[in-house]
Formats: sequence, structure tokens, C-alpha cells
Amino acid sequence: MGNSPTMKDVAKEAGVALGTVSKVFNGIPVGEPYRIKVEEAAQRLGYKINSYARSLKTNKKSIIAVILPTVAHPFFGLLAEYCSRILKKRGYHMLLSTTDFNPDAEKDCILMVQQNIVDGIICLSYSPELEITSSIPFVSIDRYFNASVPCVSSDNFGGGQLAAQKLVEFGCKKLLFLRSASPVIGEVDKRQLGFDSFCNANNIQHESMIVYEPEGFQKFFTFLDSHIRNGKLEYDGIFCGTDHLAVQVVRYLRSRGIRIPEDVQLIGYDGIWNHFEEDFFCSTIVQPVEAMVQACVDILLAEDPSNLPPLMCLPVSYGYGGTTIR
Amino acid sequence: MGNSPTMKDVAKEAGVALGTVSKVFNGIPVGEPYRIKVEEAAQRLGYKINSYARSLKTNKKSIIAVILPTVAHPFFGLLAEYCSRILKKRGYHMLLSTTDFNPDAEKDCILMVQQNIVDGIICLSYSPELEITSSIPFVSIDRYFNASVPCVSSDNFGGGQLAAQKLVEFGCKKLLFLRSASPVIGEVDKRQLGFDSFCNANNIQHESMIVYEPEGFQKFFTFLDSHIRNGKLEYDGIFCGTDHLAVQVVRYLRSRGIRIPEDVQLIGYDGIWNHFEEDFFCSTIVQPVEAMVQACVDILLAEDPSNLPPLMCLPVSYGYGGTTIR
Repeated sequence: MGNSPTMKDVAKEAGVALGTVSKVFNGIPVGEPYRIKVEEAAQRLGYKINSYARSLKTNKKSIIAVILPTVAHPFFGLLAEYCSRILKKRGYHMLLSTTDFNPDAEKDCILMVQQNIVDGIICLSYSPELEITSSIPFVSIDRYFNASVPCVSSDNFGGGQLAAQKLVEFGCKKLLFLRSASPVIGEVDKRQLGFDSFCNANNIQHESMIVYEPEGFQKFFTFLDSHIRNGKLEYDGIFCGTDHLAVQVVRYLRSRGIRIPEDVQLIGYDGIWNHFEEDFFCSTIVQPVEAMVQACVDILLAEDPSNLPPLMCLPVSYGYGGTTIR
Repeated sequence: MGNSPTMKDVAKEAGVALGTVSKVFNGIPVGEPYRIKVEEAAQRLGYKINSYARSLKTNKKSIIAVILPTVAHPFFGLLAEYCSRILKKRGYHMLLSTTDFNPDAEKDCILMVQQNIVDGIICLSYSPELEITSSIPFVSIDRYFNASVPCVSSDNFGGGQLAAQKLVEFGCKKLLFLRSASPVIGEVDKRQLGFDSFCNANNIQHESMIVYEPEGFQKFFTFLDSHIRNGKLEYDGIFCGTDHLAVQVVRYLRSRGIRIPEDVQLIGYDGIWNHFEEDFFCSTIVQPVEAMVQACVDILLAEDPSNLPPLMCLPVSYGYGGTTIR
């Protein structure tokens, strides 16, 4: 058997209208004989009733919990803003929980779903302890749990490739990748994989330096120092895992007398917009934040999410922000 | 009769413990004779049972709605972050509604209180249509409605004075105030009043230019152009109503060859921290955001808010951010 059966297949098998199937799966009352027909047809075809779409619809509170580490950071602020706007368009309110990297916040929200206080969760979490079961209406951003928990991210692998490609296009010969990593394996790790792949496929010299500490900028600076000879950095193109890190590195290199972009070009990741300067903070791989949030909301509120891919990687773009030649 | 009676007075009059009075007013069950004693004593004394504190306690949902224009702007992002953290400490979740300057969002939240979906509202609103009745648990930020709706703001008047005082201290002789204003009268208007007062009291030359359009920066630039003679601006000290405006003005003046802070010094208002550069965007009057949010939450969750002042103006401070001499 090829594809898994859809609601349409169930309707055909049961000899009822598609709307009837939808009602049954969403807990909306229909005549008892119809309900039995639909449920039997679903069982015969092996149609997996998506329990989370069900719980989302039957006892709707019109509140979705959004879990983010913070909203004081501009990237997460933008995510929260789009969550608020896009949920509102669909008739939902956003209950925003900022975790400040404390895992209790996530457990709290899961409890709120179980207690029927909120209808579902959109979550960007770095918590190693977090476990999600498929019975909870849950969409993850940037972190893949398993095939039954939908995950939305930017195309981190493609973004890493794009960064390497741009640096090479702009004339860089020896590349460096820098990143502050969390111990939790996430989609974000693919930035380096894409970067390495492009370099390997095109015979570009490249190295990398990963620090497993949040904001441990000093280690990067020490590393860079050890690669400055006669006022010249050994690398002429740097890809940083985030814009935040890129901005710190730019500032540090400039303080050491290295010119950017003349001597070294830098690209960050995220595409954070400086509200005040009306510009990117640095040249960057831009995440499609609005499209990512739209995908999260569509998945969470889908009538029939059974055919959705468990991982959606949305296309990124390059944004010039003054730390490259163009 | 001097002061209005307190819960203590009611307890004394009824001959019961203070805790019993509190329970009755908060809808927590007590023996029927006690309830009657307390209610009769309250009536005799003319004690105004604060209906909003009551509705907050009797059918608690543990959700507070926070209404902000947006969270993509760093100032509002910081407000939202503190709301989330401080409400969480008190056992409440934050339902965050961003209005994007659309008044429906506010009406929506008021409806949610009436429908008992949320327990109360913290609101920063520019909507001219918004009307608040005292029966709703509601705290306003930066906008005073009337004596029965508590309002929390930074000390805008004191901040305006402080800006003028600092500019004069730094040697400025001819001052200018610039501001994008909304048609709604708010606490924020006091920034100019404080600025003018200081100048008038100290015989400092000063002028002002107000634009009643959001982000109508071009009008400010045209005004500034008309006051540049032989490459020199007529003013040597500028106070801008927000950091956002100050940053635009700094950029414009620099593009016209005017040096900052050598030729002209600028101070903004808000104290927005540049996450990436780890610095203020400009020299600024810093709003005490955490203290403001703490005050909002304290008021909203107060056992007996009857003795709280209807308007709380919290102290600001000066922050150096490179657009003044120190």
C-alpha cells in the first residue's frame, strides 16, 4: 500500500460525505449510525485518527500557549509578534510563557493542555529534559523530537551552504565557522553541516570552533587572537552561528585593528533587524520568521494533520548588512 | 470624616478577625453569621468593596491579559518579558495580545475578563476609543483614564526635567524638544512639560517641534534643515521624546556633517538597551521597566487596592549612550 489513507478515503469507504468524517473525527455530534460507519471504515483502512487534532477541536478554549526562552531578545520578540498576529487572525489568543531556560515553564504548559486551559502549544525549547508525547497538540520550532511531534525550522542546512557560497563568491579563500552550541541536538546544528558540505564539495579550506557555553564570547576572542599574525587574521571569511555572535566578533576584530569587510568578511544567521537603524546588524542568513509561525499555526489548527510532514524546513535568504562586500 | 475606612476598620466594627473580612471580600467561604456581620459592618462604615479585587479572587483562572501595541519593538519586548517573569512568580500566566494599534484587541480582552477567561488586564494602549469601567480588574501603563483605573508610568515630568538639566550641565545653551505625538493625551506628554519647566525656571532658551504623525521623521528633518546655517545647527542640545526618534535625528544630523556630541548633544527617552552592542542606542532617560511591571502586578493582585494611589510615577535615571559628552 502506497500512501496512508486520508479522510477522503475514509468517506468513500464509509459511503458518507467528507464533512461527516470531519465532524466525527473532531467530536462534533452526528447521527449515531454515521458515527459507527465512519469509525468502522477508519479502522478497516488503518486510518490513524489524529488524537491531537481531536482534542484541539472538541473543547476549544481558543488559547494557544507559546513557549520561548525570552522576548527581550529581538529574534524571539519577532517570533512572539507573529504568533500573536497569526493566531489572532485564526481566532486564537496567545498565552506567552518565557522560560528563561527553566524547564518548569514547559512542564507547566503541558499541564495546562492536559487540564484543558489551553488548546495547544508552540514551543521553542532548549530544555534537555523535555519529553513530548503525541497525544498533546504540540508544534516544535527548531528542535525535532520524533516523527509524531511536528517540527518547523528554517532551512538551517541550506542556510549554512548559502553562507559558505556567498563568502566564496565574495572572494574569501580560508573560511571559519564559529558557534555557541547547546548540549541539546537541534535543527540549528545543521548550519555547520551545510557550511562544511559546501566547503568540502568545492575544496574550500575551512575550520570551525564550537563553544558549549551560552555567551562564552571570551573563548572565541582567545581563539581569534591565537590566529592573528602580524596584525592579520588567518581567515578571510567567517560564518557565525547567530547574528548575536557575529556582532561580538565584528566588534572584537575591529578593536584589534582588523578591517571589516576589507580584511575579513562575516555572515551571521537569523536576520535580525535593527528597529532603530533600519538595517540588519550584520550580513546574515535571514530566517523566514513569518512563514515559520504561519506553518506552526497551520499545523496546530489543521483539520487533518495526518498528511503533514513531521519536519518542515522553510527557505532562507541572504541579507546584506555591511560586514561583507555586498 | 477623614480617610475612607479600611478592612481593619471593618474587622473592628464587625468584631471579627481581619482574615475573616478578607475572606468575605474575596469570596472565600466563611460561616454564614460571620459573612453577615462583615457585610453589615462594611455597609455601616460605607466601606466600598472593591469589586475588581473581588472578581479577581473568587473565580481565579490564573491568567492575566497583557495588551501591548507590539513586541517586535525592543521597549515593548522588555515590558512583555518582565510581565511574563513577574506574573509567573505570583503564579499567573500571561496572555499577550499585541494590538498593532487596532482597538479591537483591547475590546476583546475586556470581553475575556467579563467571560471569566482571564482574571485581569495590564494594558498599554493608544486607542482613543478605549473606555474602562472600574468594575474590570485593569491597570493602565502610561495613560491615565480616571481615578478609579490605576495607572503606572515612569516619572515623565521628572524625566523631561532631568534631560534639560543634563544638557545644560553639559554646556548646551539653546535647547530643542522634538516629539512624535499621538492624539490621545497620555502621561508621556509630561516629558515636554518637565523639559519646558526646567528651561523656564532657569532662563534657558528652548523651542519645540511636535509632529502628530507616527514615524513622520521627514518633517523633523525638514525642520532641522531650516535651522542649519553655514553647516551649523542653531541648537546645541536636543531632547527627543523617544530613543527611536533620537537615533533617527542623530543619523540625519551626521549625514548633514554635524558632529555629535561635539556640535550638538542629544538625549532620548526610554533607555532602550541594544542587546547586541551591549549599550544604549543613545544617551537617554531610562524608564524603570522592571519596577513599573512589578507595580502593575502588585496593584492588580493586591488584596486591598482601595488605598493605592490612582497614578504611580516611578523614578527614572540618566543613561550615557554616546550622544552627549558624558
